[in-house]
Amino acid sequence: MSIITLTTDYGLKDHFVGSLKGKILSEYPEVTIVDISHDIDPFNTAEASYIVGASYLSFPKGTVHLIGVDIERNKENQHIAMQWNDHFFICADNGILSMLTQKIVPQKIVAINIHDRFPSEFSDLDIFIKVASHISKGGLLNVIGKEIAEIKQITELQPVISNDGSSIKGYVIYIDHFGNIVTNISKKQFVEIAKGRPYEIVMKPKSIKTILPNYSAIATSDKYPIKTYEGEKLAIFNEAGFLEIAIFRSNPSKVGSANSLLGLNYRDVITIKFL
Amino acid sequence: MSIITLTTDYGLKDHFVGSLKGKILSEYPEVTIVDISHDIDPFNTAEASYIVGASYLSFPKGTVHLIGVDIERNKENQHIAMQWNDHFFICADNGILSMLTQKIVPQKIVAINIHDRFPSEFSDLDIFIKVASHISKGGLLNVIGKEIAEIKQITELQPVISNDGSSIKGYVIYIDHFGNIVTNISKKQFVEIAKGRPYEIVMKPKSIKTILPNYSAIATSDKYPIKTYEGEKLAIFNEAGFLEIAIFRSNPSKVGSANSLLGLNYRDVITIKFL
Amino acid sequence: MSIITLTTDYGLKDHFVGSLKGKILSEYPEVTIVDISHDIDPFNTAEASYIVGASYLSFPKGTVHLIGVDIERNKENQHIAMQWNDHFFICADNGILSMLTQKIVPQKIVAINIHDRFPSEFSDLDIFIKVASHISKGGLLNVIGKEIAEIKQITELQPVISNDGSSIKGYVIYIDHFGNIVTNISKKQFVEIAKGRPYEIVMKPKSIKTILPNYSAIATSDKYPIKTYEGEKLAIFNEAGFLEIAIFRSNPSKVGSANSLLGLNYRDVITIKFL
Repeated sequence: MSIITLTTDYGLKDHFVGSLKGKILSEYPEVTIVDISHDIDPFNTAEASYIVGASYLSFPKGTVHLIGVDIERNKENQHIAMQWNDHFFICADNGILSMLTQKIVPQKIVAINIHDRFPSEFSDLDIFIKVASHISKGGLLNVIGKEIAEIKQITELQPVISNDGSSIKGYVIYIDHFGNIVTNISKKQFVEIAKGRPYEIVMKPKSIKTILPNYSAIATSDKYPIKTYEGEKLAIFNEAGFLEIAIFRSNPSKVGSANSLLGLNYRDVITIKFL
Repeated sequence: MSIITLTTDYGLKDHFVGSLKGKILSEYPEVTIVDISHDIDPFNTAEASYIVGASYLSFPKGTVHLIGVDIERNKENQHIAMQWNDHFFICADNGILSMLTQKIVPQKIVAINIHDRFPSEFSDLDIFIKVASHISKGGLLNVIGKEIAEIKQITELQPVISNDGSSIKGYVIYIDHFGNIVTNISKKQFVEIAKGRPYEIVMKPKSIKTILPNYSAIATSDKYPIKTYEGEKLAIFNEAGFLEIAIFRSNPSKVGSANSLLGLNYRDVITIKFL
Repeated sequence: MSIITLTTDYGLKDHFVGSLKGKILSEYPEVTIVDISHDIDPFNTAEASYIVGASYLSFPKGTVHLIGVDIERNKENQHIAMQWNDHFFICADNGILSMLTQKIVPQKIVAINIHDRFPSEFSDLDIFIKVASHISKGGLLNVIGKEIAEIKQITELQPVISNDGSSIKGYVIYIDHFGNIVTNISKKQFVEIAKGRPYEIVMKPKSIKTILPNYSAIATSDKYPIKTYEGEKLAIFNEAGFLEIAIFRSNPSKVGSANSLLGLNYRDVITIKFL
């Protein structure tokens, strides 16, 4: 089985996603197409980057990930295909993949160069479809592009470790469907710096003293029903490995969310202070 | 063909649903996955219950229904898998399935007990994926759980029949995409109590005298175009078998909906009075 | 491979789309189902018409397009199935397909007449599912309907060419996910009337002098980064072949969109004046 995943900012109201699938199925009828998200904030490459990084590992090796965010080829952004950690990624070289390549060296990157082979009315997305189908069928990267050594790095805010190692300063990089706040502080980084020391998560309204193993761990006492804890703030490392500030059983339209209750927003600072 | 359906409150913005599908396909590449809804109101088990009850019968026997709403395993909620009416349901035992078991006795229920076989970073959802793939491949329930006799009953408001049988008092349990109001009064119950008597549906703003066989039946006269009837309120039994109060050709952002025009909301009372 | 596409106004919150897919898969387990849109504005047949017309060509010949918008069979609207340009369309005869038939003569149209073969609780959608599965399996139109010569024409606003050929007056027919404005002026019509003359697109706030080949062409100077051009208004012919007024890298919630910034709305006038 071959899988192509789709991550775009096209939304679900228009026909764009349906047309994209129709064109892929026209090229490769046997492929399985899986939507990751089509609600990426328009042209927000940082958000796309987080979503792709958080989801790719749920798929079998060899899966092709097509990223349709800010894909117009222009003087700044060429089209690339990258083999990385035995997965394939197709996107414009606008920094989306730098979050991945900072962790593991890519196996191969090519600048796609097949544009001239197609009629002029072929869109950028049409090229991505050709490339995705080609790779998904087991085709080689070298057939559709010219090998390059590096991709563009995004200058996104990175977590900062203080000189004396007493704190990590991170930032909010994503706000999810439940209004939970995802920071760019990873569990790996935390464990390395913490070295078992006690800590405190300092943020705008009030700090948090403990990072929980899961949401329900908020219910520390067996005396009260779980419901008692609804609306309490907590911190966990989420399934993608990043520090997340959440409200227990948050519902943005009812009890509120970390986003609404704590007033935390995209790019806000979260610091872990070691005590 | 095996089908796994998904009903969750994960929303479509994040990567959660995509990752869920990737993991299922990694376990069982040949399975067909169908989304029921990912827009269940967060942690609203009553809404999930209605949606699952209203949709399962559209699928072939043997279909596995994975319900990802309020699934954290904790002191109150264990994980269960249930065979019922030749369909399979996987969820936390938080009352979601009691709407089904009140109608037909389950064929088998097990409390899932395979959690210890997996690494500690395995999430509750990962367990559901393992169980869903296992059952979908034809595996036995006893392999993944210990048989139990009963599941938790939700104490949701049930329709009340007056002592003299002169009325049924129901409640709004769901408001759909069109703003139509679904009550918990079923056609079956209505027919049993009504015994052919005339009736009136009494609700906040104004009562309704007739339950129509379908929406278009509102157009009682051939003299006027159908368009004339847009915006009129009506009552039908919907395809799930429940009394629904609707606005003909409602459009929440234009002519308005039963929800907005009649001021009816979740848990409001609707009474059928027999005359 | 057989494909059935779905275009409806059912939304994604309710179970309707999931149930629809379950019923199709019950009839025809091997079929591939692709969502075009389920967010058509409720009962808006003009919007459905644009979306279907803009997407069908992305699919292989023989694809069956099921259109679930305003489908109740009543004295005004019968159910039809149409073979057109080697694709199949199933809908109520409410004008949805007239945008297509104005361009190319249909190969065959039938009024569906199998309703009496099914139990009375069969819904209009259930009939569409039977018909879609039948056609998708290669069944003949004549088996499920009686041939008819014509379908209903919608009296939607058509572009008007001035008597002296000096202008085309079109209308906004669709506002997409990015807030871009789609008019009913097609590239074909523009080229035929323009005959190479200079022109100006006149609209409410300010006119546009050039129709660009693609969005990025807004960046006319190599001196400035592409980002400099964000928020500028532009005109292109979109992939569906219609004149579109857009904001470069528009984001309705941030820089704004053609819809919000230029104040253009559904049915507003856009005129191309030849100079």
